[in-house]
Amino acid sequence: MMPRALPPRATVTEVGPRDGLQNEMLVVGTDAKVAFVEALADAGLAEIEVSSFVSSKWVPQLADAEEVFRRLRPRKGVVYSALVPNLRGMDRALACGVRKVAVFTAATETFSHRNTNATVARTLARFRPVIQAARKAKVAVRGYLSTAFGCPFEGPVDPAAAARVARDLLDLGCDEVSVGDTIGVAVPRRVREGLDALRAAGVPPERTALHFHDTRGTALANCVAALEEGYASFDSSAGGIGGCPYSPGAGGNLATEDLLFLLEGLGVGTGVRLEGVRAASRGMEAALGRPLPGKVFRAGPAPWVTRP
Amino acid sequence: MMPRALPPRATVTEVGPRDGLQNEMLVVGTDAKVAFVEALADAGLAEIEVSSFVSSKWVPQLADAEEVFRRLRPRKGVVYSALVPNLRGMDRALACGVRKVAVFTAATETFSHRNTNATVARTLARFRPVIQAARKAKVAVRGYLSTAFGCPFEGPVDPAAAARVARDLLDLGCDEVSVGDTIGVAVPRRVREGLDALRAAGVPPERTALHFHDTRGTALANCVAALEEGYASFDSSAGGIGGCPYSPGAGGNLATEDLLFLLEGLGVGTGVRLEGVRAASRGMEAALGRPLPGKVFRAGPAPWVTRP
Repeated sequence: MMPRALPPRATVTEVGPRDGLQNEMLVVGTDAKVAFVEALADAGLAEIEVSSFVSSKWVPQLADAEEVFRRLRPRKGVVYSALVPNLRGMDRALACGVRKVAVFTAATETFSHRNTNATVARTLARFRPVIQAARKAKVAVRGYLSTAFGCPFEGPVDPAAAARVARDLLDLGCDEVSVGDTIGVAVPRRVREGLDALRAAGVPPERTALHFHDTRGTALANCVAALEEGYASFDSSAGGIGGCPYSPGAGGNLATEDLLFLLEGLGVGTGVRLEGVRAASRGMEAALGRPLPGKVFRAGPAPWVTRP
Repeated sequence: MMPRALPPRATVTEVGPRDGLQNEMLVVGTDAKVAFVEALADAGLAEIEVSSFVSSKWVPQLADAEEVFRRLRPRKGVVYSALVPNLRGMDRALACGVRKVAVFTAATETFSHRNTNATVARTLARFRPVIQAARKAKVAVRGYLSTAFGCPFEGPVDPAAAARVARDLLDLGCDEVSVGDTIGVAVPRRVREGLDALRAAGVPPERTALHFHDTRGTALANCVAALEEGYASFDSSAGGIGGCPYSPGAGGNLATEDLLFLLEGLGVGTGVRLEGVRAASRGMEAALGRPLPGKVFRAGPAPWVTRP
């Protein structure tokens, strides 16, 4: 049987330097971070989330955000983004010349409370001036939606409820939403339900990124389901760095190399060189001093895998 | 969009005790093996490949095949099978009262030579009297086809060529073939090509099991593709025990718990209790003395995952 037609190209947003390193125990030095981001850009990644302008009290791993941005060489066609939790973070990001920022909320109240000490409504209200400042400065905005497929505290999540918060993020002025399976519980059927709900809520595929975790091995199967539904933007972390500290037993960013191996095998173009990403991951693996979990990072690609 | 209709039920063949343990460095004691198999049967697995009647010179890990079979309690509805490489192995299996045996060959000559020191044609010729003896004793026969999707030595594998060897196995009298992605290089598109070739060669879905390795993270995505094509029989290894010693950098049996998590989430029935398999894996993890790699084994299922 013929497989469904897939998008010819997909966007890969590399979240290892921010989402990945934020969830590592070890605080990595600035030199290693800058080398990591430069190597990722060398590999052809055009969207890289570099750091977070949060209080270093909360995220000591990323306390050097200003220094990292200062030292990155600007590149035509490469977007270096940063997480900003509030206006103070936004001001810091703007002072660094950041051209894309991300705000974050959750689909469930308990997760939002534990993660940001605020209700979902309160996080959205807090973003309003942040996003206004971004738009005034012509800075792009991504909105993260955590626990869209399941919450470690509240259990299953109603797809329509998650989609409403995603729609709220767009209504507030976000250019795109990144819809996260924070604890890695989704399977393809559930992904399709979530995407149906997003579309029904007026969140279109072209403004949606999918952020799957591979905690239970289903991330690539979920990507295939999303591709078949016409979604073509995915978040991943080089080498599988990081996880989610709020999810006991989790761990599990989808590894960028695994995603690229799948996309190449399916004939979906990305413009990213898998071996270049592996080289970046090797450098960060040395800095972290522990084996990274990414499967293709470890096993290598099959050089003979059919390309389109 | 509605997902394609999936089979309502799937068969899971547990290969951990044989394929898994054969590829572990450590030789596990007979007590632990028997407890492992009994726990797997307790969990509801109805097809368990228990051991291998090969020379203990080649596979010291399974030198106690007779003793393991002697000590297993027969259960109604549970098939305990064994690998047999030749007539001598078949005689040993029959003497133990084994009711299902498996023979093995490969889709590529180099892999066959390194694995069995024989050409593919020679392995098939060697199976002829084995299968005749099995049929005479009313013992079921499975035929393994390794490297059906890619070979570590020869590279890409022509789907039609692999399908011809699968057809040869059926023609020799095998009841079913288990088609293996031995080094874990397949992606869903390639899986569909392989299944198309099998069907074209007269190897029907109801006589085909799929044996995916998760070396590059694609095993569950490949299972979904196969389910969508109407295939409903999969091999997996509890806890992800084992791998393939002939594939440098591989490692990678699909973990039974990961497969069950996917199938449950997709509403495909198996009759197997995931927590029961986790309990079996925990026992074997203790015996092996190393953390097992299975993702759902480690992270646990999401208790709230939607069931049909």
